[in-house]
Amino acid sequence: MSIIAIVGAGMMGSAIGIPAAHNGHEVRLVGTPLDREIIDHARATGEHLTLKRRLPDSYRYYQFEEMQEALQGADLLVGGVSSFGVDWFCEQVLKVIDPALPVLTVTKGMMDDENGDLHVYPELFEKQSGCRGLRLNAVGGPCTSYELADLDDSEVTFCGRDIELLRWIKSLFETSYYHVSISNDVVGVEAAVAMKNAYALGVALAVGLAEKRDGKIGAIHYNSQAAIFGQASKEMKRLLDYMGAREESLMLGIGDLYVTVYGGRTRMIGKLLGRGYTFDDAMAELKGVTLESIVIATRSARAVQKKIEKGELKAEDFPLLRHIYEIIVEKKPVNVPWKAFEIESVG
Amino acid sequence: MSIIAIVGAGMMGSAIGIPAAHNGHEVRLVGTPLDREIIDHARATGEHLTLKRRLPDSYRYYQFEEMQEALQGADLLVGGVSSFGVDWFCEQVLKVIDPALPVLTVTKGMMDDENGDLHVYPELFEKQSGCRGLRLNAVGGPCTSYELADLDDSEVTFCGRDIELLRWIKSLFETSYYHVSISNDVVGVEAAVAMKNAYALGVALAVGLAEKRDGKIGAIHYNSQAAIFGQASKEMKRLLDYMGAREESLMLGIGDLYVTVYGGRTRMIGKLLGRGYTFDDAMAELKGVTLESIVIATRSARAVQKKIEKGELKAEDFPLLRHIYEIIVEKKPVNVPWKAFEIESVG
Repeated sequence: MSIIAIVGAGMMGSAIGIPAAHNGHEVRLVGTPLDREIIDHARATGEHLTLKRRLPDSYRYYQFEEMQEALQGADLLVGGVSSFGVDWFCEQVLKVIDPALPVLTVTKGMMDDENGDLHVYPELFEKQSGCRGLRLNAVGGPCTSYELADLDDSEVTFCGRDIELLRWIKSLFETSYYHVSISNDVVGVEAAVAMKNAYALGVALAVGLAEKRDGKIGAIHYNSQAAIFGQASKEMKRLLDYMGAREESLMLGIGDLYVTVYGGRTRMIGKLLGRGYTFDDAMAELKGVTLESIVIATRSARAVQKKIEKGELKAEDFPLLRHIYEIIVEKKPVNVPWKAFEIESVG
Repeated sequence: MSIIAIVGAGMMGSAIGIPAAHNGHEVRLVGTPLDREIIDHARATGEHLTLKRRLPDSYRYYQFEEMQEALQGADLLVGGVSSFGVDWFCEQVLKVIDPALPVLTVTKGMMDDENGDLHVYPELFEKQSGCRGLRLNAVGGPCTSYELADLDDSEVTFCGRDIELLRWIKSLFETSYYHVSISNDVVGVEAAVAMKNAYALGVALAVGLAEKRDGKIGAIHYNSQAAIFGQASKEMKRLLDYMGAREESLMLGIGDLYVTVYGGRTRMIGKLLGRGYTFDDAMAELKGVTLESIVIATRSARAVQKKIEKGELKAEDFPLLRHIYEIIVEKKPVNVPWKAFEIESVG
């Protein structure tokens, strides 16, 4: 039996311990200061407030001030914060742990810098926590927390630099329903699952455009979605190639794009945009909730726009992502550049 | 204005003339002997019986015995038959036309031979009509006939050997809603859009498995679908690489997979299988209708199985397609080989 301390009791942080608990490992769930109510509720009822599922009875719960107790004897630390919690996580957790303690993070996203370079979180975690030589690994892949909590078959990829360490982490989590590939293509895996956010928004535009044309919500049209899905796959491939990713990381991203097109609020924003809302109006519909997926989408789109302006990427290779940029950053109306998707393939 | 004669008045054959008619070209729709009622009905009402849509008023209709009249002065012949009509089409149409007349076919599929080699239709058309040096081209890509008839944005690829000819054919059909890429990767385009049938069945298994587990129809679970979608993308890439296809043809196939997962009876069969039906019982549910998509799926699966037995492909590269083979050919129950999807990516 191993001891797994999870810091961050959001939905994915809380759900990822389920397969490990089913494997007989001790899972200690530590809330951030924002998770106080979730921890209190789980202690009292065994249920997760926002995931709305019962967690395994063997879970132990800790408030953040009890983290050191939770880390006593821990074999693995899971970072369960969203990308909004990254600074906090580096400062309050990664800087204080024993650097020998292996870490697995569920945080998804990328940061862009003023040059348009994109940086994945394992790299940022390392720098921002003081380059302590941490043993950082991350989870990517198409896996919604609800469905994981329902024990649906899910396939993810754990990435990190050390394949032996990844094999061991996999052995903790692998179950009959939770399937784990491993990869040392950290940039490829993390970039693929981050950039799918922008492209899922793109596919969802087609849903909204069809609803607008039909004059009713819920209209089902797939040709236009499929055209954008295919274009998204092409552009993801180009950007991943540019970043030096391996091919299997692209395929992971394509699977993740599929699940994201159907999952939650990215789809809702895309649909509203397709129906004719401005970006600001669409965001206002969501009552001021800042969507992590939109923030991540913006970073990818902004970075590629910058690379195009600097002549390091070609505009004609990214018409869909550039339109996402126009919509989100330049607040332009939706006008899918279908003709720019056409190619002549001559060999 | 050009004259386009379409032979085969099924749904796609009839729908593909719509953008050309909108461009002002004369479209002559010729029924096969099986389309007699469709032609009579369209002549009388302007509507297509099975497509259940009004066709452009400028369409002209011909029964098969009037084909020669329809071919008078035609600039392009469109082959509108399904894969079940291929022998008839070669014998009755391709063998009798002027070989200088350019041809565009909508027929989808591949044939496998005793060696497990897969052959695309443009190649078969050429041989089976007597190697007359026909100017054959074909349409691939995610496009359902209903949505094309509704003028939804759709993106397809026209493939053939002669790029100049493809540019001209494209100019006939290209509209504000019908977007056309062109490619001389005939094998890649045709193989990609044929093999997606087997893989769409694979993704639909996950839908049925979730329904079975939940005990209700219509349960929405995407993690498992996405896992199979990602695996499908990997296997399609491997098979297309083996066949010498170009990368953009894979992306076309991925878009086509997306639309096929949601479209019609392939999904229905996959769902029934996932719910626990045997293959024969699932087919019986469809009241004896032979599904073209299942026939095509079987050919791809059988061919790859043969190549694996001959040691020309590796079994571990195609666990999903091999399971489709087990289900369809060996009549085994559904038992998705999730663990075989896992990889170690080490670079």
